[in-house]
Amino acid sequence: MEWKLDKTSRTPLYQQIVDELERKISYGEYPPGTRLLPERKLAEKLEVNRMTVVHAYDELSARGFLERKRGSGTIVSSTNWGVFSKNETNWRRYVEGGSFRTSYPLVQRIREMVSEGDIDFDLASGELSKDLFPTELLQHCLKTCPFPEDLSYVHQQGFLPLRKTLSSHLKEAYRIKASPSSILITSGAQQALYLITQCLLSPGDAIAIEAPSYLYSLPLFQSAGLRIFGLPVDENGIIPRDAQKLYKEKNIRMIFLNPTYQNPTGTVLNKKRRKHILEIAESLGIPVVEDDPFSSLSFEEHHHKPIKSYDTNGNVLYIGSLSKVAASSLRIGWITGPEAVIQRLGEAKQQMDFGLSVFPQTIANELLQSSSFLIHQHHLIRELKERRDEMIQALKDVLGDEITFSIPMGGLHILGKLNKKVSDKQLVEQTIKNKLLYMPGSIYGMGDGYVRFTFARLRKEKIRDAIGRFSQSLHSL
Amino acid sequence: MEWKLDKTSRTPLYQQIVDELERKISYGEYPPGTRLLPERKLAEKLEVNRMTVVHAYDELSARGFLERKRGSGTIVSSTNWGVFSKNETNWRRYVEGGSFRTSYPLVQRIREMVSEGDIDFDLASGELSKDLFPTELLQHCLKTCPFPEDLSYVHQQGFLPLRKTLSSHLKEAYRIKASPSSILITSGAQQALYLITQCLLSPGDAIAIEAPSYLYSLPLFQSAGLRIFGLPVDENGIIPRDAQKLYKEKNIRMIFLNPTYQNPTGTVLNKKRRKHILEIAESLGIPVVEDDPFSSLSFEEHHHKPIKSYDTNGNVLYIGSLSKVAASSLRIGWITGPEAVIQRLGEAKQQMDFGLSVFPQTIANELLQSSSFLIHQHHLIRELKERRDEMIQALKDVLGDEITFSIPMGGLHILGKLNKKVSDKQLVEQTIKNKLLYMPGSIYGMGDGYVRFTFARLRKEKIRDAIGRFSQSLHSL
Repeated sequence: MEWKLDKTSRTPLYQQIVDELERKISYGEYPPGTRLLPERKLAEKLEVNRMTVVHAYDELSARGFLERKRGSGTIVSSTNWGVFSKNETNWRRYVEGGSFRTSYPLVQRIREMVSEGDIDFDLASGELSKDLFPTELLQHCLKTCPFPEDLSYVHQQGFLPLRKTLSSHLKEAYRIKASPSSILITSGAQQALYLITQCLLSPGDAIAIEAPSYLYSLPLFQSAGLRIFGLPVDENGIIPRDAQKLYKEKNIRMIFLNPTYQNPTGTVLNKKRRKHILEIAESLGIPVVEDDPFSSLSFEEHHHKPIKSYDTNGNVLYIGSLSKVAASSLRIGWITGPEAVIQRLGEAKQQMDFGLSVFPQTIANELLQSSSFLIHQHHLIRELKERRDEMIQALKDVLGDEITFSIPMGGLHILGKLNKKVSDKQLVEQTIKNKLLYMPGSIYGMGDGYVRFTFARLRKEKIRDAIGRFSQSLHSL
Repeated sequence: MEWKLDKTSRTPLYQQIVDELERKISYGEYPPGTRLLPERKLAEKLEVNRMTVVHAYDELSARGFLERKRGSGTIVSSTNWGVFSKNETNWRRYVEGGSFRTSYPLVQRIREMVSEGDIDFDLASGELSKDLFPTELLQHCLKTCPFPEDLSYVHQQGFLPLRKTLSSHLKEAYRIKASPSSILITSGAQQALYLITQCLLSPGDAIAIEAPSYLYSLPLFQSAGLRIFGLPVDENGIIPRDAQKLYKEKNIRMIFLNPTYQNPTGTVLNKKRRKHILEIAESLGIPVVEDDPFSSLSFEEHHHKPIKSYDTNGNVLYIGSLSKVAASSLRIGWITGPEAVIQRLGEAKQQMDFGLSVFPQTIANELLQSSSFLIHQHHLIRELKERRDEMIQALKDVLGDEITFSIPMGGLHILGKLNKKVSDKQLVEQTIKNKLLYMPGSIYGMGDGYVRFTFARLRKEKIRDAIGRFSQSLHSL
């Protein structure tokens, strides 16, 4: 529900509620059987007295729009309303069917809070704060990029000029050799992962992911019916031999890695292990999916070459995106690998959405070619490093030895372990009460007491207060 | 393969082929086991002498990159190449797994020809010709639309200002009442259909579609494991009682209709039947999916109100898009229905692609609000009507009583029946030889001898020549 009441209007508040609900019911947006919010909850949401809502529900009930039953709440009437009303569609049956799994409940809870916006400190969202997006640069790119000559459907693998630019970009920035025909442009890394799970794997297949991993909480793996097994991460990433073991025991068919500034641990898989896991994957004949959203957000002198840059046999599918380095709402990501595989993923994408809009692709193409993009990246990295440092200092000052963490050398997150025994669920609810959001470790498949803080979403000045607020929530438990 | 040879270069052509293939093999884009194009085919594609390709393949074989076996073609060697080469990934196993079905072979064949571009007359593609897109207007919208203030992720149902604009647009143009919270913005109508099949239906479910129907050829229904049953279309659309019968016999769970200027028949479901099918669907408790890409492309004085405009019980999911009326590469479509259903589809979309880019949404919002959009629509309709008339006249003059067809009062297509007995496959191949593309009826689930001609994709001046070329192909069989 997105409607707001007009408190300056002459129409009484209860009448405004009646009008809006009547409209939604008569428009078929609330079909017969729809359960309305309990009076107390709707009153909270609309910031009115509970009696105002009671009054509105009463009137609608009297007029036959609603049925109210003690204990089972208020539902849209199916007997007294509707021109043809007989056995209307039981939408619940449809909505609960299909193969889609909804999000992990804690993730859903946190997302809801983010979208409601009534939060002081967001340490949960894994994206940049508004001021870090290169807004002016993107605005400039939008103005200067050549307008597409032909507005017919774009090639199913994406806008060719962008794929050409990416081909050079991948070579220069990552030492990855990928020609335009072996690149598919996607709606961020998310769609690349979705395409892989839907096209290259079948329900019941086993896969290996890092433990902990953000992939653990992605319902798309559950929706695809995959069995997920963990590869424990130490300070240098996963231990390659574990993959061999999982292969023997569980017959894993694919290995998903986020080797650089891994989410949520912040660790980097070292070079020796990168080469070793590639060797193992090749000898077992199973592909590696390398998800690499953060390697360009590095605070180190030395850059880590992706596993893909060592891959000469086409064993690695490499995923990148502009979401963390430019803007999430641009929705530009990419995947590269053997041409036949990329073509297949492109065909599947065509079935799903008939290709990406040409506009974000022309903007991304302009952005990647702009000399200002490098300047933006330097600025972004400097800012992120400052925020990381500020958060580290605040954690030390405020929480001291109540928390243990290691220092990430890139990316957006710090993972900490609380030394006090607390339940994730309780702590999340307590912080929400205090208008702060963070990501609890259970979302990543860890036990209670782990916390992931994003240092990119809050301005530097607010970070210390955020940690203070967190500490307060922790202590009140 | 997208590479082209440089015929002005000093490097011999065979050497250019060697270099390109060596690069693709060493980059892992053609992993071991990849089957290369036969010499003759590659030679045709690159427009060189076959011996040039033979020479290139020979050199690469001698150097151990390729293996050539009589009868089984040329494959990338798995023994002599690769740093770690042991048991590389058998990509074929992965590519052929997953739940995705590829396109109907004839559709695939025609799409390939479209994308190769070596065609004189395209009567197949169901989109506007380049000159009919409102290019200047869109360019203007791109320049004037307010740049998004915040580049964070957009709401999962889409950019709110666009949903508000659509809410008014649907009311004014179609008499459909839909509030912004009951609208989901999609990547064209295609994604709306994909979301419905994936989220609201389960493998094995039966659905009803018009017979003939363009949905018949959409592999997304096969990919979702649905059983498809046809509702025969006469000159006034489907016969509502047939749906009742299908429900009893096959237990259909959803009815998909394209009631206005139906693709491919061009027919309009009359008002009486619209109300009747809605009544039946309601009494059976099964939803109607109303796909409506063409109703704004009407050559009639009187506009046909969508089934959705009569739906007060939330039984209809209504799909619209800007693809046929503005530009296909904008990729903006929408779906509206009961809020709980739309929310569920939005959640699923979130899992698939994390939402649409904000940029095409801001452009679409500007476009729909622009007074010039109506002017464009009038111009577009006038142009389309002229092309339709030209095609009708050409069909009469050139093919006479060799073809029977009825006159569509809107949309982009004419469906005809050839009076001569011909095989669809043979006729398609013959027209391709003559550099003309059309859509054969078998793609829509009809018998041999039906043809769908798009009159929107060719300029008026070329239509008569196109029909001439078609006639020539038909007669040479």
